[in-house]
Amino acid sequence: MKIENRLEEIGIELPPPVKPVANYVTTVQTGNLVFTSGHGPVNMSGELEKGQLGTDMTIEEGYQSARLVGLGLISTLKDTLGDLDRIKRVIKVVGFVNSTPDFLDHPKVVNGVSDLFVEVFGDKGKHARSAVGMVQLPGGIPVEVEVIVEIED
Amino acid sequence: MKIENRLEEIGIELPPPVKPVANYVTTVQTGNLVFTSGHGPVNMSGELEKGQLGTDMTIEEGYQSARLVGLGLISTLKDTLGDLDRIKRVIKVVGFVNSTPDFLDHPKVVNGVSDLFVEVFGDKGKHARSAVGMVQLPGGIPVEVEVIVEIED
Amino acid sequence: MKIENRLEEIGIELPPPVKPVANYVTTVQTGNLVFTSGHGPVNMSGELEKGQLGTDMTIEEGYQSARLVGLGLISTLKDTLGDLDRIKRVIKVVGFVNSTPDFLDHPKVVNGVSDLFVEVFGDKGKHARSAVGMVQLPGGIPVEVEVIVEIED
Repeated sequence: MKIENRLEEIGIELPPPVKPVANYVTTVQTGNLVFTSGHGPVNMSGELEKGQLGTDMTIEEGYQSARLVGLGLISTLKDTLGDLDRIKRVIKVVGFVNSTPDFLDHPKVVNGVSDLFVEVFGDKGKHARSAVGMVQLPGGIPVEVEVIVEIED
Repeated sequence: MKIENRLEEIGIELPPPVKPVANYVTTVQTGNLVFTSGHGPVNMSGELEKGQLGTDMTIEEGYQSARLVGLGLISTLKDTLGDLDRIKRVIKVVGFVNSTPDFLDHPKVVNGVSDLFVEVFGDKGKHARSAVGMVQLPGGIPVEVEVIVEIED
Repeated sequence: MKIENRLEEIGIELPPPVKPVANYVTTVQTGNLVFTSGHGPVNMSGELEKGQLGTDMTIEEGYQSARLVGLGLISTLKDTLGDLDRIKRVIKVVGFVNSTPDFLDHPKVVNGVSDLFVEVFGDKGKHARSAVGMVQLPGGIPVEVEVIVEIED
């Protein structure tokens, strides 16, 4: 089944792809690898979610926010590649979690992205991953995620 | 000399390879590059070390903890590659150090990984590296490290 | 126009390339990708700038510091590649910003690197980018940046 159909089947609507506001771009391809910029959680209205784990956001809210970041990344990749079926494998995910010094559950937050990728791409969505705690993130977003994907030749 | 023999010669015993508990994997290969997930310090009993630089852990303890992370990464790579001699070069190391706002010696901590890689792999172990300070890390570990290695064709 | 001439034209003088003081190197090449170590802001006298966004450094000062990191990265790449015209594309930039929990403008700081790369390399300098907030950085530097560049075959 095509990834586009899979998205429809599981009722996923992608947010519009983001546009950088400075001298960088959302993706760069080298060989058959595509590197993305760090993405934040942008809702369907194009607004960035804000929050911090350990202060005003629960793990479940952080998980949903990370899932939203994942949807944005898929949207960006669709915009770049034209067809999501060109993705051969999600190689690497780094999840930066905006959190307090006493918050320890960064992986449970970043699972929001990881679960989405496996839900959408199946085994091709299984990636190497790092999850880490940040003192703060741009604009006060709770999660920033960057990925590397491999595309078909 | 084979890397396995080198490990024996310098008296290094590898901890068991870790198993991810979510929708990600410990390594992904693309072309002749292998990306690892972020690893923490797992001792021979399979338990994660906890601590933070600047509060309850000295630089030397952090160094040893980073070395332990390195042993875990080598264990994971052996599990993935079968033979550690397939490693042509350690390309990149990112060392995330769990530390307080007034701790400045992240490189001295991450040296625990860097020194180990050169001890074990010789010139092939010399890598590009970033060392940075994190407000906190998953489960309260003191160091998380991710690597990229190049393998023989 | 050659990049060296472009640097001269816009009046840019590169600082001397840094030398690592431990078991790592400033760059590693794999295939046609070059990964750099994380670089800090080194001035023409070879001294590291110190500071933190949100305490003793303004956004504009942070921007200039990030630009200085970019100059050091270009210096390192020139030292490694011999000729900067071998750079086909700047692929990825990660900007780690030393900042307080209430500082939100990490992208405005990292723009110092991004703007420099586009100023010097033109469209080849447009990269994917992540900008994140760190509780502290090695030696108290305000910005650390690592890059991946693709070189000509």
